[in-house]
Amino acid sequence: MADEAPFQLLHSELIHYIYKSADGENGRNITKLENMGFRVGQGLIERLTKDTARFKDELDIMKFVCKDFWTCVFKKQIDNLRTNHQGIYVLQDNKFRFLSHLSAGKQYLEHAPKYLAFTCGLVRGGLSSLGVKSIVTAEVSVMPSCKFQVMIQKM
Amino acid sequence: MADEAPFQLLHSELIHYIYKSADGENGRNITKLENMGFRVGQGLIERLTKDTARFKDELDIMKFVCKDFWTCVFKKQIDNLRTNHQGIYVLQDNKFRFLSHLSAGKQYLEHAPKYLAFTCGLVRGGLSSLGVKSIVTAEVSVMPSCKFQVMIQKM
Repeated sequence: MADEAPFQLLHSELIHYIYKSADGENGRNITKLENMGFRVGQGLIERLTKDTARFKDELDIMKFVCKDFWTCVFKKQIDNLRTNHQGIYVLQDNKFRFLSHLSAGKQYLEHAPKYLAFTCGLVRGGLSSLGVKSIVTAEVSVMPSCKFQVMIQKM
Repeated sequence: MADEAPFQLLHSELIHYIYKSADGENGRNITKLENMGFRVGQGLIERLTKDTARFKDELDIMKFVCKDFWTCVFKKQIDNLRTNHQGIYVLQDNKFRFLSHLSAGKQYLEHAPKYLAFTCGLVRGGLSSLGVKSIVTAEVSVMPSCKFQVMIQKM
């Protein structure tokens, strides 16, 4: 558990700081978190792919995100990857670290988005550095499980 | 290298964000970073010491900070620990991660404080959770080597 603790605690502090210091407009705070995730994702994928072979297609890239990228950040892989083979991918994490410290009750569901925004940006930034433009959203139905939907934007 | 990358990149983003969004007063930004480090340090030491035996004295606590605590955050130990046995400890890290991405030239020395503030707070917060009140400062003479001075405050 301790390995990912510094990152997880820093992420919590960041949310706390942004929500405390900003003007309280939730949408703007979400955007800030998403943007920070984007830049961290970019930096991270650059380090991770420095010595890897070229990816053969989009699916290959998504698998890399689900395995190496996710493991580097969350010390576990994505549990399930699905695609409609038309540019939509759903990445399911059954025990998403940034939610696992929240109570699993439904009363905290409304707080989930602020714990997901950074990671949506993280995935979007990582993909972007690999030349894949996307829109990433997240959905929680039962905590701490979480689904990230990636919609590839054809250029 | 990749293991500590998420934490390191998030730390950089945090500095960037605070310096961009705040009013530009350097002293206040340093305080903010230090406070965030403090809270992360508190949370971290609580997780790390959950199952450890009681510490026998102050030196024993400092050794834990130099080894387990530092390794958890920076994936390496402190290289050198010195003390005057009167409440002052100097922790030297010869390759401090938060500085290793900066050029080693002297021209960046003036930027060092903002990369050290969070970690000063981290150590102070960790010690505080173990009942040790302290003042922590940092000093860089040759990058990326860094000395953290811990002055224990007797209560």
